[in-house]
Amino acid sequence: MLILASRSPQRRAILQQLGVRFEVVVPEVEETEEGDPRGLVIENALRKARAVEGARVLGVDTTVFVDGVIHGKPRDSQQARRFLERLNGRKHDVWSGIAIVEDGEERTSAAVTHVTFRELQPAEIEWYIGTGEWRDRAGAYAIQGRGSALVERVEGDFWNVVGLPVPELIRLVPDLLD
Amino acid sequence: MLILASRSPQRRAILQQLGVRFEVVVPEVEETEEGDPRGLVIENALRKARAVEGARVLGVDTTVFVDGVIHGKPRDSQQARRFLERLNGRKHDVWSGIAIVEDGEERTSAAVTHVTFRELQPAEIEWYIGTGEWRDRAGAYAIQGRGSALVERVEGDFWNVVGLPVPELIRLVPDLLD
Repeated sequence: MLILASRSPQRRAILQQLGVRFEVVVPEVEETEEGDPRGLVIENALRKARAVEGARVLGVDTTVFVDGVIHGKPRDSQQARRFLERLNGRKHDVWSGIAIVEDGEERTSAAVTHVTFRELQPAEIEWYIGTGEWRDRAGAYAIQGRGSALVERVEGDFWNVVGLPVPELIRLVPDLLD
Repeated sequence: MLILASRSPQRRAILQQLGVRFEVVVPEVEETEEGDPRGLVIENALRKARAVEGARVLGVDTTVFVDGVIHGKPRDSQQARRFLERLNGRKHDVWSGIAIVEDGEERTSAAVTHVTFRELQPAEIEWYIGTGEWRDRAGAYAIQGRGSALVERVEGDFWNVVGLPVPELIRLVPDLLD
């Protein structure tokens, strides 16, 4: 049985949509904000997976990078507005790291998806701030919620942006769907 | 109030996720399979929108094209298997047409998203056939269900593949989110 070391309801929903049987244990870890995007999300995924006991533990970390600068969960609506203004009308990168800790062995992988925002009017950004959906979301938006109205196009794995890179996970856990 | 002229639960879910108020009326139309991809999906979207009474009616048609050949809803599991074998390990196009009929005026638009399948093993295709999810799905897969396991990457609007191109709809109906 897979153990998902994450508090994210989005990650739970993706595993459910795949029909995977799993349990959730929320890890208590300090996350790093240091390093290049790939190294950072893999390190954080590993910290989460290592923090939980189990035969097969999955840790995941998803982070938004704009011009190589990390954009995590906004602390308030002002910071959320600044994030969205920065994302407006252009392309940014969403990286996820995944780590499997199984029988003392550690396997890791990472994926990047490029997301391009529409050219948003100030009123559209205010509308999105008003939804409150930016809370607790890396980069201040949820691509599978009201935030779908903000996005023009994606290039790469869509589910990576929601919080779990599906093709990478299948490669790392080949018997995932059995 | 927007009237969605469609029987698709996926389209309903996308409008709900955007927070749009709407009603559903299922249109009775004969769909065409003639024409180039853009012309075909726009024509079918128009037929659906015209078939329903209302002040502002939205018709949508989504179709999968492989090498320019239409791949609609498979009639049985054998045809679904053939479709998936054809999609395996390569890129195909998903087109949606949208039509708004409002006060006697018709506005239309279309969007295309490129979807690349993973290199699937025969056992993976059989697993997906076994889920039954291919039923009633253009191209024989649902990208937002178990079918997420089949897809390596998308290029374009993700929601277009699910059944409703969100940025195109916002351009066609600028007050959609008000």
